Amino acid sequence: MIKKIDHIAIVVHNIEEALQVYEGALGLELAEVKEVPEQAVRIAFLPIGESEIELVEPLTAESGIARFLEKRGEGLHHICLEVDDIEAALQDLAAQGIRLIDKQPRQGAHGRVAFLHPKSAHGVLIELIEKPR
Amino acid sequence: MIKKIDHIAIVVHNIEEALQVYEGALGLELAEVKEVPEQAVRIAFLPIGESEIELVEPLTAESGIARFLEKRGEGLHHICLEVDDIEAALQDLAAQGIRLIDKQPRQGAHGRVAFLHPKSAHGVLIELIEKPR
Repeated sequence: MIKKIDHIAIVVHNIEEALQVYEGALGLELAEVKEVPEQAVRIAFLPIGESEIELVEPLTAESGIARFLEKRGEGLHHICLEVDDIEAALQDLAAQGIRLIDKQPRQGAHGRVAFLHPKSAHGVLIELIEKPR
Repeated sequence: MIKKIDHIAIVVHNIEEALQVYEGALGLELAEVKEVPEQAVRIAFLPIGESEIELVEPLTAESGIARFLEKRGEGLHHICLEVDDIEAALQDLAAQGIRLIDKQPRQGAHGRVAFLHPKSAHGVLIELIEKPR
């Protein structure tokens, strides 16, 4: 069902400052920085092997990401796993009692995505993504 | 300098319970469960693409992992990035002002490892690993 880690998302106050570490010091390549207004965030995408690191910065003080920052500070936010068939995966997970934040997939920047509830995954916020072939 | 995500470590109270989700529901393969007495943990290794998910359970109430669990609960603990030359990487990072938890690499279960301080990586605990060729 799961093919690989698609990305690891890290919440930061300021993408440019975080890039000094992740691009500057660690030497990761910066592929792009993109605004995603419907989630009120900016995201920097840094490919690493078959995966990516995403640095996520809130655009407004009311966004979910801004609330996370205020409560927990900067750090790891979620992991995203790539699946072949997201409908089948969600159906299968629900049947096994896993709580879903998104019962139906929705369109994300790079494919159709859905989040599982961290209460069902031992404290980890897990996103699933099905990418266009 | 960085080749890929080697693993993502998730702290859990009980590996067998967590495997019901990560192996049972998500369908990841369990490669092995190993005790690492010098860190007072048990670790379950679940390969995923070119990376692994590690479920880490404390063996004693005094271990660093047990204190993390008590303070923050279950969830994402650190990410590990594979490098070609860990001495060169640490030297380079120190020269750029990154705080190192381990100034020299030490022997881990799967290679020579060193941790960077989360204060220098926007709240993320990053481990570097150099694997034997």
